Amino acid sequence: MTRAALAIDLGGTDLRAAVVEATGRVAAFASTPTDAKGGPDAVIAQMVALLGQVRAETPEADIVGLGVGAPGPLDPDAGIVVDAPTLVGWRNVPLAAILSERLGVAVRLENDANAAALGEWRFGAGQGTQSLVFVTVSTGIGGGVIVDGHLLHGRRGLAGEIGHMAVSERPVRCACGGLGCWEAFASGTALAREASHLVASGGAPGIGRLAGSDPVTGRHVAEAARQGDGPALQLLDEEARWLGVGLTNLLHLYSPERLILGGGVGSLLPMIQERIRRTIGERAMAAFRDVPVVQAALGRNAGLVGAASLMLPEAS
Amino acid sequence: MTRAALAIDLGGTDLRAAVVEATGRVAAFASTPTDAKGGPDAVIAQMVALLGQVRAETPEADIVGLGVGAPGPLDPDAGIVVDAPTLVGWRNVPLAAILSERLGVAVRLENDANAAALGEWRFGAGQGTQSLVFVTVSTGIGGGVIVDGHLLHGRRGLAGEIGHMAVSERPVRCACGGLGCWEAFASGTALAREASHLVASGGAPGIGRLAGSDPVTGRHVAEAARQGDGPALQLLDEEARWLGVGLTNLLHLYSPERLILGGGVGSLLPMIQERIRRTIGERAMAAFRDVPVVQAALGRNAGLVGAASLMLPEAS
Repeated sequence: MTRAALAIDLGGTDLRAAVVEATGRVAAFASTPTDAKGGPDAVIAQMVALLGQVRAETPEADIVGLGVGAPGPLDPDAGIVVDAPTLVGWRNVPLAAILSERLGVAVRLENDANAAALGEWRFGAGQGTQSLVFVTVSTGIGGGVIVDGHLLHGRRGLAGEIGHMAVSERPVRCACGGLGCWEAFASGTALAREASHLVASGGAPGIGRLAGSDPVTGRHVAEAARQGDGPALQLLDEEARWLGVGLTNLLHLYSPERLILGGGVGSLLPMIQERIRRTIGERAMAAFRDVPVVQAALGRNAGLVGAASLMLPEAS
Repeated sequence: MTRAALAIDLGGTDLRAAVVEATGRVAAFASTPTDAKGGPDAVIAQMVALLGQVRAETPEADIVGLGVGAPGPLDPDAGIVVDAPTLVGWRNVPLAAILSERLGVAVRLENDANAAALGEWRFGAGQGTQSLVFVTVSTGIGGGVIVDGHLLHGRRGLAGEIGHMAVSERPVRCACGGLGCWEAFASGTALAREASHLVASGGAPGIGRLAGSDPVTGRHVAEAARQGDGPALQLLDEEARWLGVGLTNLLHLYSPERLILGGGVGSLLPMIQERIRRTIGERAMAAFRDVPVVQAALGRNAGLVGAASLMLPEAS
């Protein structure tokens, strides 16, 4: 028998399930489009079905419990999904208790960004550290923070809203309603916005050609930059500078041993690493300047294996 | 016998010692000007003498150990003062080991801002919480952060350099060498700087009269504001707005149950509370807006009783 945990990654688009061994190996995996409009009952039925499927594929596994990563805000101690904006009807759902009763196993719940941070910590780019910040940069900027061997929760489990620290007085409105948030300057959405403006003004014909009639995205910028397009390189340079500004703040605030970048923009790290490092070198206090900025290692699996690690004490 | 701990607060100006009971009560206290130029040997001799003095006053105390608050950077696990910029010759001094050998008691070391945060947490304005940020606003902005019942240390014990998060793109140089740090806009030094400019330009004659031929300080601004002076009220309003900007960031990053303001500017809280709250209300995500901002309760004793609490398990 191999010790393993069940894991669920509840997303607004996809619902994913796995059996994860104590080594972090994904022994079985299944996914389905989330019935986001069906309400909690429908989605919970999907979860039970998927878990039955992965369980059937791993008869040798000694299952110690189920870890669930779900959209925040949620209450990890009570196991309650407080609200899930991308899912209909998910208000104060005691998901851990429901699943525990249905499946007869212990269940723990964690918000998805925190679960991904745990995954990278135990099995990915954060292995061997006691303190790290996992930063996922795509549509928005989210993350999870581990300090001194503990995942930070704080009041209502809301610690680590790193995308929403103000870094500028420019009145740029963030998706959260705030002003001057890091996310408003350094997310993939912000990169696409800057690129769109430049294309519209005729300043970036190379990016415009790649996008054609589609909306300009960060991917178009990255592709053009890879071809040596000047405006694209300039846009990425500014993106990297903004990332460096926020990462410097995270160094000063949490003093991690490692900064881990994930998400679509995080995957561009090889192209922007140097500019990020230069920005940190210019802005951080001396003692923080040598902290490595590394790419996330687990991709989409980070949340699943992190959720599983909640139930694998030897892994957390 | 009453369980108690010895405590030292090593400052660049004053050296302070106490016997602190498990309730937080200071049973005996002594202080002396720090022999800052005398080097570690001289200052350690001062410590031993002061501790002998407070110990002699409390023969009934059952001493469980000594807690020391000292300027950072220091290594709390190893008990080493890495560097103390305000003291001559303090480089990599194994202070905990030296004092433990001299005094025959267990010794723990913590940086002074963290010790003050611990003091407020266990015995002051943070009692009953699991998560808080202690923010001391005077010459600079420092602090200590407790999340989920743990004081954050991070790599090299450097977590919580909250004064040095960038909050603006304005190229205002901070004492740390960085640009746009919160401290550069919201510290007492920043308030005095703005007030000086205003006085020099003839825009604040009331403050100018109070200062006379002395340099303008935050105290002059506060005094003028208490008398209803318009420019002074305007300066405090801007100070409070800047405090609110940074406090909002701290809410998003650490999700404390309470924000505790100490230091000279912190003592002005009753005058600036409303504007701080309005700023947080405008900028914070909804879930964070009701977190109380309260004044520190222990004043200069926070560091001493916090240092003692390192050795009083029932208090930490």
